[in-house]
Amino acid sequence: MQLFYASQIDGNRAVLTEEESRHLKVLRKTPEEILHITDGKGYLYEARISETNIKSSRETVADIISSTLQPRNRNYHLHLMIAPTKQNERMEWLLEKAIETGLDKISFLQTDNSEKTRINMGRLEKIAISAMKQSGEYYMPEIVEIRALKDVLETTDGKGLLMAHCYSEYPRFTLREQLLKNTENNICIMIGPEGDFSKKEVDTAQKKGIPGISLGNTRLRTETAGLYACMACSILLK
Amino acid sequence: MQLFYASQIDGNRAVLTEEESRHLKVLRKTPEEILHITDGKGYLYEARISETNIKSSRETVADIISSTLQPRNRNYHLHLMIAPTKQNERMEWLLEKAIETGLDKISFLQTDNSEKTRINMGRLEKIAISAMKQSGEYYMPEIVEIRALKDVLETTDGKGLLMAHCYSEYPRFTLREQLLKNTENNICIMIGPEGDFSKKEVDTAQKKGIPGISLGNTRLRTETAGLYACMACSILLK
Repeated sequence: MQLFYASQIDGNRAVLTEEESRHLKVLRKTPEEILHITDGKGYLYEARISETNIKSSRETVADIISSTLQPRNRNYHLHLMIAPTKQNERMEWLLEKAIETGLDKISFLQTDNSEKTRINMGRLEKIAISAMKQSGEYYMPEIVEIRALKDVLETTDGKGLLMAHCYSEYPRFTLREQLLKNTENNICIMIGPEGDFSKKEVDTAQKKGIPGISLGNTRLRTETAGLYACMACSILLK
Repeated sequence: MQLFYASQIDGNRAVLTEEESRHLKVLRKTPEEILHITDGKGYLYEARISETNIKSSRETVADIISSTLQPRNRNYHLHLMIAPTKQNERMEWLLEKAIETGLDKISFLQTDNSEKTRINMGRLEKIAISAMKQSGEYYMPEIVEIRALKDVLETTDGKGLLMAHCYSEYPRFTLREQLLKNTENNICIMIGPEGDFSKKEVDTAQKKGIPGISLGNTRLRTETAGLYACMACSILLK
């Protein structure tokens, strides 16, 4: 089933973005045709393209015929906090794969060793929409702008948080044991930049009671570590 | 520790490829400097750059001072059999990430629904070398040319094989239960192309006693499925 994304549900009408409208045009969809649309909030709509807007190829409006709330695919809530990689494409790739595997929220961290301090939210949102449709998901993950790890650590109570790092001098658990111990299934995993979190950051996290974790025996790149965390949840908690 | 790759160990001399030699030049390494080199077969060598070949920037020769066999990072042997994706970069990406996570062998399948019937072995080898060095691994996975799934299924005894597919009308286990059941830790997972294996192929596999498996609740792209299999082994078996 081909799925479309509506950025806005306005009463009985689903409003498709310009990008989705271009896609409709490519597929030669014409007015009166029935579409399957999601709002990324769990709803699947059946809707009929209304004649008025299809030609402009800007926004398309479709009249909703029916709507059903789809069940979530998983029993856990996963929030990934990650320091963006220097290369944008590595973050974009991670986002695509994480959504395929199951992700509820991603937020970006500025850390002591970060070289990248900006992300392109618009582009990440486009990738998220495309990955959601591709994998037949009806829930779009929340994407949160970059913020300082320092601020996150200052304000958090540490509950449900795990910090992946590579320092063997700090106590570290395996992600597996931590996930199987977590009974609330509300998980937030922090992944550092190329060059890892600083010792000062790990220290602060320790003091907040955030367990350190290791992700297997090999050295993983930042984006691989992020996906490893998502897949571990999918494999162990589903 | 910066690791280099020698394609050839010739008595007391390690021969670095042209690509690695270019890398040495970029790093301004000079004769008499000590390098850490792996042969991709588990050995870590300490070797001194010999003066003779460094200038040509073709092959570099280094005199071996010491060699140590490094332990393997994992207790299982994983062979991934996968139908290549249309886009080369998706397979290249998979290979990089699979090596970071742990992979012993990858071979490529031509299947009923395959659109891609050729792979670039030279390029995949380069990516494998780079990923091996990056992740601090001393074992280079075996990369096997594309061959027909039909031939594979005709000649195999099915032992240790698992076939991932999306047909709900066939019995399927979760990868997790199959991995935890496998006591030999010798695993071979087959991943189909975009469009999945054909029913005929799944039928033939069933008759050979190859269990069908599912990879979670969502629809995964081919390369995501391949990595999911590698990460599941790393998470569950290590």
